[in-house]
Amino acid sequence: MNHIKGSQSISFEESPYIISSASVVGSKESEGPLAKLFDMSSTDDLFGGSTWEEAESTMQKEACTLAIGKANVSAKEIRYLFGGDLLRQGVATSMGVEELQIPMFGLFGACSTSGEALALSAMSIAGGYGEYMLAVTSSHFGSAEKEFRFPLGYANQRPLSAHWTVTGSGAFLVGKKKSHVRITGITVGKIVDYGLKDSQNMGACMAPAAADTILTNLEDFGRSVQAYDRIVTGDLGYIGQSILYDFMKQKGHDIEGIHLDCGVQIFDQDKQDTHAGGSGCGCAAVTLSAYVLPKIQKGEWKRVLFVPTGALMSTVSFNEGASVPGIAHGIVLEHC
Amino acid sequence: MNHIKGSQSISFEESPYIISSASVVGSKESEGPLAKLFDMSSTDDLFGGSTWEEAESTMQKEACTLAIGKANVSAKEIRYLFGGDLLRQGVATSMGVEELQIPMFGLFGACSTSGEALALSAMSIAGGYGEYMLAVTSSHFGSAEKEFRFPLGYANQRPLSAHWTVTGSGAFLVGKKKSHVRITGITVGKIVDYGLKDSQNMGACMAPAAADTILTNLEDFGRSVQAYDRIVTGDLGYIGQSILYDFMKQKGHDIEGIHLDCGVQIFDQDKQDTHAGGSGCGCAAVTLSAYVLPKIQKGEWKRVLFVPTGALMSTVSFNEGASVPGIAHGIVLEHC
Repeated sequence: MNHIKGSQSISFEESPYIISSASVVGSKESEGPLAKLFDMSSTDDLFGGSTWEEAESTMQKEACTLAIGKANVSAKEIRYLFGGDLLRQGVATSMGVEELQIPMFGLFGACSTSGEALALSAMSIAGGYGEYMLAVTSSHFGSAEKEFRFPLGYANQRPLSAHWTVTGSGAFLVGKKKSHVRITGITVGKIVDYGLKDSQNMGACMAPAAADTILTNLEDFGRSVQAYDRIVTGDLGYIGQSILYDFMKQKGHDIEGIHLDCGVQIFDQDKQDTHAGGSGCGCAAVTLSAYVLPKIQKGEWKRVLFVPTGALMSTVSFNEGASVPGIAHGIVLEHC
Repeated sequence: MNHIKGSQSISFEESPYIISSASVVGSKESEGPLAKLFDMSSTDDLFGGSTWEEAESTMQKEACTLAIGKANVSAKEIRYLFGGDLLRQGVATSMGVEELQIPMFGLFGACSTSGEALALSAMSIAGGYGEYMLAVTSSHFGSAEKEFRFPLGYANQRPLSAHWTVTGSGAFLVGKKKSHVRITGITVGKIVDYGLKDSQNMGACMAPAAADTILTNLEDFGRSVQAYDRIVTGDLGYIGQSILYDFMKQKGHDIEGIHLDCGVQIFDQDKQDTHAGGSGCGCAAVTLSAYVLPKIQKGEWKRVLFVPTGALMSTVSFNEGASVPGIAHGIVLEHC
């Protein structure tokens, strides 16, 4: 049976595999440093649709279709789908995956949703609930600005601590069929609230949650930082990353040499003017699919801790004066 | 190991128990037919807070605290929490469960979320991932009207097909410890879309999903309608209920004698002026906790299929002309 590890973690005795994955991105992402690694990119950020929301749904559908196509399975063979996004009532996912007709669990973990979806997919496979599970998340700059800030037409000015929401969707087929990447364990995050109220500085809001989940993971698995070739956070960006380093140092861990943040990787800070870095459910998902997983597949990295982080807020919550707590889920990925 | 059943279902070999549950409701619910059955009710629909959102979070916290208190366990003993609500970015849940500090999975399944949370809790227990899981959902009339229609101060007029969102939260402790109610199986729902676009007639939007999940459940488990003492839908209301009966009749099943809908049960149609009936994540959850579970505990009903239904929409989606698809998750509850 599966092993409960420490206070918040699971160590899978028969670890599920990430059989295949896919990344679909928009125009800005396809001009960034990872441009050549994505499976599909569009110069039209509407993806042929008429609204940003429709575009985001199209990306999810394409990412799912690509991921299952790569593994040469059909949608009918997939037992359950775990998906989510940043929009109110997760509508990008509902509309995006509808056509696939896979029984589905809708999720919300803000930008940590890719970790949540991978965790539940892995738990479902290792629990014996099916042969294949599909995990998918997305975000879109246009729909996110409209949802959380202002519609793009308002030409709203953004503070330097703000992130640039990634237009992208990543999908992951998890199952029993062998590949070169296994999910050997997970650490489910708790809500961590330092009382910060600046929704335009999400890196600072999320960094304590990242630190909490990383530290819990190390403790639960009895590992040192050196047990990982890379610790990959989702979208802390430049500000959140430096706060994470401080938190980890306070606890006696230096992660600078092995840490990378998807929000830092995906855009060129000098040329692309994305302020604190990339963010969104799509940021961690497409970077994991296009950049991180291939390195694990090749064995370049043997063991990686993937820790996407989410800022738990809505426009109503921060306008009503509530703080912006964070959450982060840890996924242990190993080469095999 | 756990048994995969048919196309969408799971039959648990070692079925988890619903160890305890709790219901917290607002003023209107405490004047309805089920008034005396709820664990806690407040004449102040703000529950001592200053916003509807805060009130909804308070209800979730109280429901969780009551459920785990009844079972005499502490929050620390609960491995994972599965929770969700109707508000954008599930903010009632994030703010509501934060203090409990249980590692958590945020969910969104509209008004089917109680089914989704119970399904994932049961899968996690039967998969060996912990001793106790907590499932919680909520809705609030004030926050839901603001989210989906207009703030209450606008005195917006509602069509007769509209539902009245239940102010309430239900929490369920699922685990290995014996009780008189087991979750013996689940049927995970697919998104069902008949192209309906009237967000003020959710019963009609959700009825096809309810029928789809009930029919799939019967097929997957090889059961007839008579195998259940009751089939309990979440919030189809009067309109959705009559559509469900038609769908079932078309497929050769008469469920009228054994069907009940939480949205029909919770309010008095003659005296409480709630139009099509109650709705919201809280509707199915509090009715399950206060009315349905005690009947199963006593053995009055031996086997019940609980099928909460959700309308997958946001104000953005229906204002942009998208249809309102439905989803329903089936939970098989048995007396033991």
